[in-house]
Amino acid sequence: MDEFDLMARYLMPLAANDAARGLADDAAVFDIPEGFQGVVSTDALVSGVHFPCDATGDVVARRALGSALSDLAAMGATPTGCLLTWGIGPDWEDTFFTRFADAFKADLSTYKVDLWGGDTVRAATPFISVCVQGIGRKSDLLSRSGAQAGDAVYVSGTIGDGFLGLQSFGTATGGDGVSAYEAPVPQLALGQALAGVASACIDVSDGLAADLDHICRASQIAMEVEAMAVPLSAAGAAYAQDRGQLGTLLTGGDDYQLAFTVNAENEHKLKDIGRIANVALTRIGAVSQSPEKHYAARFMDANGAEIGFENRGYTHL
Amino acid sequence: MDEFDLMARYLMPLAANDAARGLADDAAVFDIPEGFQGVVSTDALVSGVHFPCDATGDVVARRALGSALSDLAAMGATPTGCLLTWGIGPDWEDTFFTRFADAFKADLSTYKVDLWGGDTVRAATPFISVCVQGIGRKSDLLSRSGAQAGDAVYVSGTIGDGFLGLQSFGTATGGDGVSAYEAPVPQLALGQALAGVASACIDVSDGLAADLDHICRASQIAMEVEAMAVPLSAAGAAYAQDRGQLGTLLTGGDDYQLAFTVNAENEHKLKDIGRIANVALTRIGAVSQSPEKHYAARFMDANGAEIGFENRGYTHL
Repeated sequence: MDEFDLMARYLMPLAANDAARGLADDAAVFDIPEGFQGVVSTDALVSGVHFPCDATGDVVARRALGSALSDLAAMGATPTGCLLTWGIGPDWEDTFFTRFADAFKADLSTYKVDLWGGDTVRAATPFISVCVQGIGRKSDLLSRSGAQAGDAVYVSGTIGDGFLGLQSFGTATGGDGVSAYEAPVPQLALGQALAGVASACIDVSDGLAADLDHICRASQIAMEVEAMAVPLSAAGAAYAQDRGQLGTLLTGGDDYQLAFTVNAENEHKLKDIGRIANVALTRIGAVSQSPEKHYAARFMDANGAEIGFENRGYTHL
Repeated sequence: MDEFDLMARYLMPLAANDAARGLADDAAVFDIPEGFQGVVSTDALVSGVHFPCDATGDVVARRALGSALSDLAAMGATPTGCLLTWGIGPDWEDTFFTRFADAFKADLSTYKVDLWGGDTVRAATPFISVCVQGIGRKSDLLSRSGAQAGDAVYVSGTIGDGFLGLQSFGTATGGDGVSAYEAPVPQLALGQALAGVASACIDVSDGLAADLDHICRASQIAMEVEAMAVPLSAAGAAYAQDRGQLGTLLTGGDDYQLAFTVNAENEHKLKDIGRIANVALTRIGAVSQSPEKHYAARFMDANGAEIGFENRGYTHL
């Protein structure tokens, strides 16, 4: 099967939209409505690093698209299209492509994203890269850099399920944790509702501690987080209690929830926002100034003592 | 060195623009002027496939950005920004990154493109992916699908130098051919001048024969090309004469010239366009109908006999 057979068989059926131009041109062409800006992000997933070497096509598809869309969610953007690059490994057979294409198509439909184009190459180590495009109103788009002293720190959903999902991946133990790793759900509706409301926002992909640190550095502030206030799933609570390893959940990553800051004036809006986005929003701490320029999140235990972590989150290199 | 050190050292200096947001956000944010559309394309290059495993960073950078921008040139678009994904191999050291960043920076400046963001991952087999963004006027953007019977077929510059450059890569033989492979020059000025003038356009990346076939299929037409009319460099002419292998040059790829069709009404505009874009434009054939639906380019020798090729061009898989 050559590149064009592969495209015709698996990708063309996903690309029935104007921007894609039938995947027959050198580039995709898109419009941005007046008053809106374009938002673009790209995420690469490498076999054996970001997904298990024996992961099935549907898992790879959902992780690739979900993690990429999660970056748009963190900006408060509405996704419009994506480019999909397949770095095709020697072991990828029909079954892999079929499961990939079916899952990718289903998620494109769920999240109302069009496939606009991409690239297909041969690679000894397989990889997937998804570039997602979206739009947002200029004044409303979120960033990591707007947090101010006095703002409250919130997180959506539960934290640590991505880590638990990775631990139990392939063991068919199921439970709350599996889906956050295998099929990340980008918090797009939440991000869009937070646009113009939150002062800073990030998606929890590296690990809660590391990702809050990103906000701290970009905003040049510090945070104090009550570790016991961080919401856990039933599986997460059991894991933390049985092993005394709450820290592992707070630094494990792959949760794809949103962590954000909000000022006192806007905090009352969160009740409606959580209801509309159908996700729990939990206050876990507060933003403070850092005259000593130590821009990081401090996690406190029930006694008010700071918790130390071996690693703050996933390190990419 | 972790991801953030790498970014701070090599990438931040290239990303001093508003859209990049200091590489501190989850996504880049950009504007498109009224009356324009966005144009986006992505190109992945894998070590050992699209560049030699021992290629230096500057060669990899120029090939990655040049080939990606060439796709925008084929659309008649003006590039605005790009996302750079590094799939970092075990052998990539400081020297590689330094040479990559220096060459990438120089080309960004030459082509007036901003670095907006990207991703950095670890990969056993190194790869580079560049997603380029641009803009173009809605009515003027080029495609592969507008060629009509009676149009003339043109090509810019000379053909076959990419193949010769690959052949001589690393042998320091120099000559005309080296640069088309090592440092592809995207024909952006030409593509922009052809916007609204050419009826169909493509960049010659897979090989002239294969790329003309792409126009034929997208436009549902056929072409007759006079092989002897295809412009060759001095090195190309010598290669074709010495070895009797003109076909290798016509199917070799990596030329990054533009091949396009133009109707009789617009053909007279090409003289000025070639002068403004500072590149030779050569008529090599004509578009015809294909009632039998054989949508391909036929290459004729000096006696009017069709030339057969073993392969029409580079096959990606």
